[in-house]
Amino acid sequence: MELLEQRIRQDGQILPGGILKVDNFLNHQIDPQLMYEMAQEFKRLFADAGVNKVLTIEASGIAMAIMAAHAFGCPLVFAKKSKSKNISHEVYSVEVPSFTHGNTNTVVVSRQYLHAGDRVLLIDDFLATGAALVGLKALVEQAGGSVVGAGIAIEKAFQGGGDKLRAEGLRVESLARIASMGDDGTIEFC
Amino acid sequence: MELLEQRIRQDGQILPGGILKVDNFLNHQIDPQLMYEMAQEFKRLFADAGVNKVLTIEASGIAMAIMAAHAFGCPLVFAKKSKSKNISHEVYSVEVPSFTHGNTNTVVVSRQYLHAGDRVLLIDDFLATGAALVGLKALVEQAGGSVVGAGIAIEKAFQGGGDKLRAEGLRVESLARIASMGDDGTIEFC
Repeated sequence: MELLEQRIRQDGQILPGGILKVDNFLNHQIDPQLMYEMAQEFKRLFADAGVNKVLTIEASGIAMAIMAAHAFGCPLVFAKKSKSKNISHEVYSVEVPSFTHGNTNTVVVSRQYLHAGDRVLLIDDFLATGAALVGLKALVEQAGGSVVGAGIAIEKAFQGGGDKLRAEGLRVESLARIASMGDDGTIEFC
Repeated sequence: MELLEQRIRQDGQILPGGILKVDNFLNHQIDPQLMYEMAQEFKRLFADAGVNKVLTIEASGIAMAIMAAHAFGCPLVFAKKSKSKNISHEVYSVEVPSFTHGNTNTVVVSRQYLHAGDRVLLIDDFLATGAALVGLKALVEQAGGSVVGAGIAIEKAFQGGGDKLRAEGLRVESLARIASMGDDGTIEFC
């Protein structure tokens, strides 16, 4: 998506350790018009997928995901990072390692909000190793639902998570796919 | 706002300890059309306030707040709960006690995203004791900006936080104000 690539070139910052900082429009300060445009693109891409629910993970995916849910006319559910290791029987849960923070989170969704028969579109701001998507997909499958695909803002294609998931049969649509990031601040898109 | 009050009556659940559970439309599963309608109402209420930024706190305020920011045509900034007690000089920070979780969070916003001259609308899903709003207001004031008011989905008026803030001169607009909640599940609005 040209609009998002332009914005990354203009406002993205490359930090040591392969971190792309986009927190002035995507995940700390957020541009709502960009979220709206991305949601329209997801709606176009997944128009025929029968989406009846959007699922994301707190916190920075929520802004994109609510706009996407609005475009599809369906509810958004966001998976929560659990503070407790004692997981109740009222939730589906999964362990998700975080590339950025170097830790593992227990992520939960209430059993009330994921069901057999659901056709779920996963939404997230970043795709790197794919761990978050694997976790979200597992939550949907615990409920007996189907994942129709994943809509991602920025895929770091060089980390391989997206292609691995595609090879496993998941439809992954990333609006910007980064082939490489140079230490001099240059970004190459796929 | 009639639409929100109806939804609370229909889908809200009262739990022991004065907790109103609205996680099937507001803060776990989220109804995007309701978020959109609430955002339009905030836009109407604060039309002349010169809002140039919306500020909320992660995670459950983000969905409402991005819709509000879209209605105002301005950026959303969300304050983050810091995992670290070592706060960098690059952020404004404040301590916010949580009524629901019984703990205190250090909440931060990057200095890049709040400025002197900003006219900030605070948005949050709940107002009870007012601690979150007090914290968000302090962050704006650390930056030298002005808070033009607060837009809240559900105010638990019986906990007094809203009226205390109004008495101090803050404009607080709550779309549903709860006067009392009975142990039998009844809810009375102001």
